[in-house]
Amino acid sequence: MTTTDSKPAENGVNVQALLDAREVLKGAPEAAQFTWRATSSWKDGVASTTKIQNFFGLGQEQQHKVESVFDADHPEVFAANDTAITPIEYLLVGLAGCLTAGVASVAQNRGIQLRSVEATIEGAHDIRGILGADPDVRNGFNDIKVKFNIDADASKQEIEALVAQSQKRSAVFDALTNPTDITVEVA
Amino acid sequence: MTTTDSKPAENGVNVQALLDAREVLKGAPEAAQFTWRATSSWKDGVASTTKIQNFFGLGQEQQHKVESVFDADHPEVFAANDTAITPIEYLLVGLAGCLTAGVASVAQNRGIQLRSVEATIEGAHDIRGILGADPDVRNGFNDIKVKFNIDADASKQEIEALVAQSQKRSAVFDALTNPTDITVEVA
Repeated sequence: MTTTDSKPAENGVNVQALLDAREVLKGAPEAAQFTWRATSSWKDGVASTTKIQNFFGLGQEQQHKVESVFDADHPEVFAANDTAITPIEYLLVGLAGCLTAGVASVAQNRGIQLRSVEATIEGAHDIRGILGADPDVRNGFNDIKVKFNIDADASKQEIEALVAQSQKRSAVFDALTNPTDITVEVA
Repeated sequence: MTTTDSKPAENGVNVQALLDAREVLKGAPEAAQFTWRATSSWKDGVASTTKIQNFFGLGQEQQHKVESVFDADHPEVFAANDTAITPIEYLLVGLAGCLTAGVASVAQNRGIQLRSVEATIEGAHDIRGILGADPDVRNGFNDIKVKFNIDADASKQEIEALVAQSQKRSAVFDALTNPTDITVEVA
């Protein structure tokens, strides 16, 4: 949907601060090194609780205003208690949040007023991998599909360009489409 | 810490059901095809809300007992409002939950009683990528480090083997260490 509107776009994103940060960090790469942290505890069965508050960035310790607590479990069809969502579903939460934030940021930068941004995400998963039923089946998703439904003061083509640019700069999109080294050690 | 204990291990994991499922799904690959789903809505700025309840598996529509709702935002050092954790941090929640569930499952299968399983996770992230400050810097994590602290009726070597086997069968570990195709479209 496209309308003409003389008011400047206001999507609530402080784009100028982000553009300024980009310029500053070009000359201060050490300040751009962030560390995100989580601590988790096993509860019982396949259920656990993970807490997030502290992180490191801009050369010093930082913290979110509040500690956030997330439970994970597995569904009854996995012979578990379904007290919370499955760990792999948290990846979809991260992907949705990251692409949506990108759409809002790029829209603000391009002067496009958003009215609504909805996304549906589906991750296909062959559970024979994690069960060890077939060594040729991978453990993770087969693929992920994201569909955006966006109402904005822009053409379909402009909206598609917003989404494309969001993908191009998305931390989570990159983390899922490209490999990352993970080291696991026992204290 | 190792103690001798004549009681069978009870970690709350129904391993027999999982072993039975493995055998059944070897001959019924279509039932093993799951689809995990999430729907998200932009709130304002770089904040969004994602809801999860329904999924598909064992040949039919399934649902979690309750709908779960997750907010995502960005910290004040990103010129945002910090009303919730950052999308990329949700990946750490998923990784913690998946590896911990795996440790509990493998321990149950091997007759090892767990007393506590704690993990700390750190994801290193150079934010010059997402800001567009340096085209050679990736958007996602540089690397992720997981440290487990496990108290169980088992030797250090047995505990390390539990963790190794959990990695080998982890959906989220695979999803982050190996690439997945993601298609994004605009309705």
